[in-house]
Amino acid sequence: MSDDFFLNLALPHVRKLQPYTPGLQPKVQEWVKLNTNENPYPPSPRVQEAISRELGAGLRLYPDPRSTALREAVGKYHGLEADWVCIGNGSDDILNLLIRAFCGKGQAAAATFPSYSLYPVLVANANGEMINVEFGRDMRLDVEKLAAVDANLLFLTSPNAPTGVAFPNEEIEELCRVFPGVVVVDEAYADFAEENATVLLKRNRNLCVTRTFSKSYGLAGLRVGYLVGDPGLIEIVDRLRDSYNVNRLSQVGALAALNDREYFQETVAKIKATREKYRQYFDEKGWFTYPSQTNFLFTEPRNREGKKGKAVAQALYEFLTERRILVRYFPSHDLTSSFLRISVGSQPEMLTLAKTIDQWLNSA
Amino acid sequence: MSDDFFLNLALPHVRKLQPYTPGLQPKVQEWVKLNTNENPYPPSPRVQEAISRELGAGLRLYPDPRSTALREAVGKYHGLEADWVCIGNGSDDILNLLIRAFCGKGQAAAATFPSYSLYPVLVANANGEMINVEFGRDMRLDVEKLAAVDANLLFLTSPNAPTGVAFPNEEIEELCRVFPGVVVVDEAYADFAEENATVLLKRNRNLCVTRTFSKSYGLAGLRVGYLVGDPGLIEIVDRLRDSYNVNRLSQVGALAALNDREYFQETVAKIKATREKYRQYFDEKGWFTYPSQTNFLFTEPRNREGKKGKAVAQALYEFLTERRILVRYFPSHDLTSSFLRISVGSQPEMLTLAKTIDQWLNSA
Repeated sequence: MSDDFFLNLALPHVRKLQPYTPGLQPKVQEWVKLNTNENPYPPSPRVQEAISRELGAGLRLYPDPRSTALREAVGKYHGLEADWVCIGNGSDDILNLLIRAFCGKGQAAAATFPSYSLYPVLVANANGEMINVEFGRDMRLDVEKLAAVDANLLFLTSPNAPTGVAFPNEEIEELCRVFPGVVVVDEAYADFAEENATVLLKRNRNLCVTRTFSKSYGLAGLRVGYLVGDPGLIEIVDRLRDSYNVNRLSQVGALAALNDREYFQETVAKIKATREKYRQYFDEKGWFTYPSQTNFLFTEPRNREGKKGKAVAQALYEFLTERRILVRYFPSHDLTSSFLRISVGSQPEMLTLAKTIDQWLNSA
Repeated sequence: MSDDFFLNLALPHVRKLQPYTPGLQPKVQEWVKLNTNENPYPPSPRVQEAISRELGAGLRLYPDPRSTALREAVGKYHGLEADWVCIGNGSDDILNLLIRAFCGKGQAAAATFPSYSLYPVLVANANGEMINVEFGRDMRLDVEKLAAVDANLLFLTSPNAPTGVAFPNEEIEELCRVFPGVVVVDEAYADFAEENATVLLKRNRNLCVTRTFSKSYGLAGLRVGYLVGDPGLIEIVDRLRDSYNVNRLSQVGALAALNDREYFQETVAKIKATREKYRQYFDEKGWFTYPSQTNFLFTEPRNREGKKGKAVAQALYEFLTERRILVRYFPSHDLTSSFLRISVGSQPEMLTLAKTIDQWLNSA
């Protein structure tokens, strides 16, 4: 049999797929890890308690296929009934299901560019076409341009990744009014923002919102995310969802995190304070940084000569990596290649980062 | 907007989808639960230890996207390199990825019938056609008939569900020789069987095998399964796999279970002993039961008049359910409608079952 044996048997579009490249996950203790927007703080202590309790009760039985308790709690949190909620094995699971429902051969999905780099991968997996609507450097939402795309599904990451810029609810609602398909607002970072689109759900039926426990709740290791939207949409996503997509421990862990509002608010407040401090740090260096409503900063470094650009960003990225500080670099597009995306870490991590940047600026 | 708003936007095949119906998962303490082939015994105590350790280390960071340690351990267990292994969020995740790679519009998948009722659901989700190759009542493998189907992907559940019958390696190897596509042997129950197909992998490139931690390892609540097969196949499945499909706790829990061979062997031996005891119990009642190499029994009940058939199976199913004993009933096909599938429970559970069956036989 030839080396292409399996590729030749695979569906034509699968032969050409490129897998998504997640941010590096090195052995953590040796690295300052500011590359995948994880929370620098541990999750609520109640998570560990809830999971330990569930461990005692046993793992031999299948989980609740509908994550019922978590659906109810998420619904309540957003002032919605449980049938407005679907729980995913991370919000990536939800994004994948939405794409499989509304996008395939001959049926495109659309997204702004740049945004979450997983969308085009999931669309390609579904044999669909991805329509990228490019931002200008001002990162303003072009509602008219978006509304005109020929797609039934439109992703809007708000606040946006990798820029950190949030879009006002007013513009999102205008988009829902003029776009005839499903508008998915991916709010992975909304807990760090001024406002969010969940309040628009009841009066914009074609709007839905995805959320994750990976960032603001500090539970990236647990893989839980959710979709809130019209029950008619939830029902369709449930058709395609794996019956047991969320395991027992993740269900109880996420529920405990959701219910500890005080811990959540404290953690988010700390991260926002650190973010503003380091935004100012970059400002003082004269580095342009988009106003961030997330837990990361997208900044355009200048070298000691005051120069910016792709070569400069690349040089700083390499300098940091060599010193075991991981940040994220997106070199493949003009809008991103002169920037670095830096997750807001703990105070000591950010101090190490700042010292290393100063070193770089002082080096030959 | 109309009530069909989302359905009209969805892909045409999605409009017609019916979701998979998992076995009921009631509040367990009140029920004797013999309907979803869970393990009556808890997992190895090392699982709880490993998960507790991981909880201490923290959940704030993303899991290893490739489940590297688990891939290596699974490979070693089967005498294979790690690149022969892919880990899934349950083996359902793996089955779904295989179907998405090899089956879609105009490209069918095949399976024996009856077998795992999830396959046709996953195939419909992928907009593919499902070719069912029906068994006769003798449940013998018709290799020639299977080899002739026009599909690139063929599922063989061995030991079979819901019958419990295992297929000899000799026949499986013959099937691999004559079928030109990918042969997936779904070995969810192979740990309870006399032999398994993993020993055939190295000399049959088109063969791959799926396994789960949900049955023999008692970890249905954790959602971990895997695929072993040629690295060329693994690479394709990885293209479609969600980067972070298996969470941190599931990775370390499954690894701990896999490494506790002594506990595993004891548990499996106990279940097999109970199985044989209750197979004899059904034999003594004159109920036909397929020879099971799994952790369940597929038996054809007779009522007090010695009659069997759909009405009799249905009557016993309802009698048991009313008394809070859950078993699985598949009424929709002649080959299954006169049978009940009964998971092998603990000794006390099986005693309760037997007493209730005796009650039924003695009732008017």
